[in-house]
Amino acid sequence: MDPNQKKSALRKMTYGLYVATARDAESVAGGTINWISQASFEPPLIMAGIKRDSRLHQAIENSKAFAVHIVGKSQKALATSFFKGGTEENGKLNGFAFSAGTTGSPVLTDPPAWFECRVLDKILRGDHTIFVGEVVDAGVRSEEEALTIRDAGFTYAG
Amino acid sequence: MDPNQKKSALRKMTYGLYVATARDAESVAGGTINWISQASFEPPLIMAGIKRDSRLHQAIENSKAFAVHIVGKSQKALATSFFKGGTEENGKLNGFAFSAGTTGSPVLTDPPAWFECRVLDKILRGDHTIFVGEVVDAGVRSEEEALTIRDAGFTYAG
Repeated sequence: MDPNQKKSALRKMTYGLYVATARDAESVAGGTINWISQASFEPPLIMAGIKRDSRLHQAIENSKAFAVHIVGKSQKALATSFFKGGTEENGKLNGFAFSAGTTGSPVLTDPPAWFECRVLDKILRGDHTIFVGEVVDAGVRSEEEALTIRDAGFTYAG
Repeated sequence: MDPNQKKSALRKMTYGLYVATARDAESVAGGTINWISQASFEPPLIMAGIKRDSRLHQAIENSKAFAVHIVGKSQKALATSFFKGGTEENGKLNGFAFSAGTTGSPVLTDPPAWFECRVLDKILRGDHTIFVGEVVDAGVRSEEEALTIRDAGFTYAG
């Protein structure tokens, strides 16, 4: 396999842009992700690839739950702020309002939609863990369209 | 959980549009898919949700391999033709030229890019199986941009 062909082919895949969050006994955690997809209608399952050495990964492992937020077209700054993780200060997460969801994961107030998952399975084979979660709660707050990673001018693939 | 909120939230996720193929002792098989993402850089892993009662699923189970093709912006007809699976006739798959790839999976000639995976793991929990595959070969044939499922006017989520 030619690694440049592999990289170019994989970079032609289409991705959204999401902020994932979780909470364990230590603190809340968050991160910007794009390797995520629905994986079943019934039950409603989600599969997500989460960077193995991240604090978000650790919080998902510990809590066996996570929340995912759709980033709206006008919310590039939200996605950018979670590139380096999520920090709680003065009751906000990276400065964004949130409340505790059904799973205990922090649910951000601003994104147009969100869902929460309980982890059922995980596969640890590469530099990201594949978490498989069942969607247990969800909500839509606005009709704003989703920002894609291409719209935002970022790449995380190859 | 309100099932309508769940459906609406999940439908805000962003997806590409791909044609997946495989070959077992019986025949070649194919299908249009969108629940797929990269899942690791090193090794390069892919996770894909494949409808459990499909012939494509059976061929992937048997061969432990599959190919994925990026559908180009001008190739909506290619994606549509694989909605009902893939049939070989006169050496073509749904009328499209292909050759055998590294894994034996049929690699279509027309798409702008493709990659082949060997299956390492699977998770069987819902109406689709999550196959985790390592990318073992890949190629880019043109610079044509990828068609997204939204561009094409289809929905497969919720």
